[in-house]
Amino acid sequence: MTTQAPITAASDFRSIDAQTGEPFGEPFAVHGPADVAAACAAAEAAFDPYRSLPRERRAAFLDRIAEEILALGDALIEAAMRESGLPRARLEGERGRTMGQLKLFAEVVRRGAYLGVRVDPALPERQPLPRQDIRLRRIPLGPVAVFGASNFPLAFSTAGGDTASALAAGCPVVVKGHPAHPLTGALVASAIAKAAAATDMPDGVFAHLVGPGTALGTALVEDPRIAAVGFTGSRGGGLALLRLAQARPEPIPVYAEMSSINPVVLLPEALKARGTALGQAFVQSLTMGAGQFCTNPGLVLAIEGEGLDAFIEAAKGAILESRATTMLTGGIHAAYEQGVEALASHGDVETVARGQLGEGVTCGVAALFATSVEAFLKDERLGHEVFGASSLLVRCRDEEDLHRVLRAAEGQLTATLQMDAGDTEIAARLVPILERKAGRILANGWPTGVEVTHAMVHGGPYPATSDGRTTSVGTLAIDRFLRPVSYQNLAEPLLPEELRDGAAGSVPRLVDGQPG
Amino acid sequence: MTTQAPITAASDFRSIDAQTGEPFGEPFAVHGPADVAAACAAAEAAFDPYRSLPRERRAAFLDRIAEEILALGDALIEAAMRESGLPRARLEGERGRTMGQLKLFAEVVRRGAYLGVRVDPALPERQPLPRQDIRLRRIPLGPVAVFGASNFPLAFSTAGGDTASALAAGCPVVVKGHPAHPLTGALVASAIAKAAAATDMPDGVFAHLVGPGTALGTALVEDPRIAAVGFTGSRGGGLALLRLAQARPEPIPVYAEMSSINPVVLLPEALKARGTALGQAFVQSLTMGAGQFCTNPGLVLAIEGEGLDAFIEAAKGAILESRATTMLTGGIHAAYEQGVEALASHGDVETVARGQLGEGVTCGVAALFATSVEAFLKDERLGHEVFGASSLLVRCRDEEDLHRVLRAAEGQLTATLQMDAGDTEIAARLVPILERKAGRILANGWPTGVEVTHAMVHGGPYPATSDGRTTSVGTLAIDRFLRPVSYQNLAEPLLPEELRDGAAGSVPRLVDGQPG
Repeated sequence: MTTQAPITAASDFRSIDAQTGEPFGEPFAVHGPADVAAACAAAEAAFDPYRSLPRERRAAFLDRIAEEILALGDALIEAAMRESGLPRARLEGERGRTMGQLKLFAEVVRRGAYLGVRVDPALPERQPLPRQDIRLRRIPLGPVAVFGASNFPLAFSTAGGDTASALAAGCPVVVKGHPAHPLTGALVASAIAKAAAATDMPDGVFAHLVGPGTALGTALVEDPRIAAVGFTGSRGGGLALLRLAQARPEPIPVYAEMSSINPVVLLPEALKARGTALGQAFVQSLTMGAGQFCTNPGLVLAIEGEGLDAFIEAAKGAILESRATTMLTGGIHAAYEQGVEALASHGDVETVARGQLGEGVTCGVAALFATSVEAFLKDERLGHEVFGASSLLVRCRDEEDLHRVLRAAEGQLTATLQMDAGDTEIAARLVPILERKAGRILANGWPTGVEVTHAMVHGGPYPATSDGRTTSVGTLAIDRFLRPVSYQNLAEPLLPEELRDGAAGSVPRLVDGQPG
Repeated sequence: MTTQAPITAASDFRSIDAQTGEPFGEPFAVHGPADVAAACAAAEAAFDPYRSLPRERRAAFLDRIAEEILALGDALIEAAMRESGLPRARLEGERGRTMGQLKLFAEVVRRGAYLGVRVDPALPERQPLPRQDIRLRRIPLGPVAVFGASNFPLAFSTAGGDTASALAAGCPVVVKGHPAHPLTGALVASAIAKAAAATDMPDGVFAHLVGPGTALGTALVEDPRIAAVGFTGSRGGGLALLRLAQARPEPIPVYAEMSSINPVVLLPEALKARGTALGQAFVQSLTMGAGQFCTNPGLVLAIEGEGLDAFIEAAKGAILESRATTMLTGGIHAAYEQGVEALASHGDVETVARGQLGEGVTCGVAALFATSVEAFLKDERLGHEVFGASSLLVRCRDEEDLHRVLRAAEGQLTATLQMDAGDTEIAARLVPILERKAGRILANGWPTGVEVTHAMVHGGPYPATSDGRTTSVGTLAIDRFLRPVSYQNLAEPLLPEELRDGAAGSVPRLVDGQPG
């Protein structure tokens, strides 16, 4: 059984219907500091038993979570639709992604390559001194605090990528559920609890704490038993957690995925050949899911000319036709309106087009703005994220302008090149600049799709994330929750199983630096 | 040619003879903020050309540095002997280690596994959506600031492990030379400059800045072009750099190796069988190099009984016979004396033995103290490092006492078990505790030898280091200066060479998560 921290108080904390802004359903119990302490104590107690389980047992737990999520049936999809305002097809797809992610990490655990096993055998005859036997594996950091995101109530929330990768690494998880979808979170947490019971996991391997406000999250990050933090959300929220973690007597890593405007560079030949098509495709990427993606294309760079005119014309037409859809929460909608208003009223910014109003009270009306290179470089606020379907086009005069803007840009999750074969030379000069600014570089696609795979990096230099050495999507995400330990001259019975001579072949290992 | 930052001022900053405390040789030019800016600008300009070189070119540079260090001949050994007070044999061995480390990283660069190449081929037929081609490699972070250590004037200083691993990763390096060995540092820097010229490296790939005081280091860490910091030294120094790095507009990683007391646990059967031999071997490890090792055994835990009495008797005898040797600097000697005095005058600490005086003005007299579990747990200062040949024995009553002390201990570089076969059960219960406290666990050896190899971890949880997810010794140290980047749907000419189809087989890669 997993620990559900005891409930300290009844409350008026309820689900909000994203469409109407009205509360619905029963109030949720709100967790307080005593619940945080209880959940963290249980997670700490679970850590050694959980990390010591045979890998197959942990893999089976992850697989079972995926199955229990599916077994929640349509109740889960309906709860998520009502709380997030996102449409059914999107949430069904997101459920599939969430399950796929858990099953992929189960495979990673089975394979065991993530342990990074290295063996340097003893060299008893070495001169002037013999070398002792030294073996290395990576071990999990300890209990992990996960802060779910509002914009992916399934794939980046209670049983999302951070939870899956931390559990895979061998870390118990304490989730601070996102207050924008408490019902969805509670359903998913119940699925994890069922899976833990069914696969006989140690008590405390998972806990789900909920409540409005920031006190709960603060107490969680400050708890001395928490060894790392995963977060997806705003820059303000991420930096606040980072500061708390750094100020602890024992500082801990924070993996905060915070903000990105995901520059898209339209290169001249591509613009010439298909400016209109690019304008239409761009708006489709911009407005998908009310623009509520970390990888939304919020910045467009292009050199002025006929091709750009065609792009703008097509994008303008598509924006004008776009109908606003419901945003995740009233707060996100208000922040979006404020961000858009700041751009609209900025002296150096031109409003290219606004979309049509929608039907709900929190519909985000799409927006496209344009500005000059000088204005963009002068006012750093123009480079800040406006979370939602808003984008800013920076009109460049030449390639040098592209370089200036990109060199001045903050760290990003993604950077995209729209290019034709004739753009290869200019693109080759841009790639080294983009590599230093982003975690993922795309050609002729749009950044809003993020594959869950082995080669994916969903990360990037600060302030896109708080730690650009990592990714929060894809199998490499497990690295965030591991650290290496060397074992020198330990007799077989004391060695971890994967390091014993008998385990050769069962997990990938480097022997004296060579696969074997 | 490498950049030697221009010299801004003559000074009275000179080498100090460790034995006599007297200055010798010509004064060194002291670098200031303008030199820092110039070196960082040159390093930034060198970054793209340097990281883009074929791997073989960078490997040849590392090999050549090793050769140029050897070509400095006896002048290097004599300078280091005089500045550090360390004996010839030790420094000749350390030179070999420094060269071996550079050559090992050259091999790592040639092999290319450090790039972590992953390829997920396109799946054009996938339903409901095709998958695009996604490829991943790791790229270097950017220019790295290296702060050399005083206790390894060769292997952890100007061309030491941090420099070697950063250059191997593809990062230009700006060294803040340790003020305790400016002549040694200048000689090694000249060897690196020669190697850079001989192998035609870009200007600015390496710079060496020197001066007393902290202003130089502060300016270096605050320079916006510096992307990461490597440091070996005191806890105070490491934490100061960490705070500077975190307060930058763009925070950067700091790899500070700071302090450790390296607990040694003497298990009952081993004590019974060979208490006397253990006591003698312990003092040998404790007093080697005047105890000036990060991995010096500064804490001994054992359960009281006959075996422990024999250990103490033998250790006492060996300490009484030990003759003090010159410490690295007057400052280090003064801090040692202060630390030892604090223990000697502590109400709950008994002085077991002090060694004999030595001949120089800064000789560190060995010291062994003893205390109770209660006293150790009550006063956290008893767990702080005294850098030098001082150790504290904590008398335990039972296994539970061992657990209590170890659970309360701070993060460590190493933890050692002295054990016989009959101690296996108690050792098996200790290993999971030690794994959470240390980067390396040893059985029946002493922590003071640190192999430079693939499976070595010289790192550990805070405050042993500022980032327990890494190591500063061994080939895994290169990971500190890399971050992953994904390339999605990029045409061959834009892909980095190692990611192209034609490069399959030239570097290890994972294809869809499998070696291939």
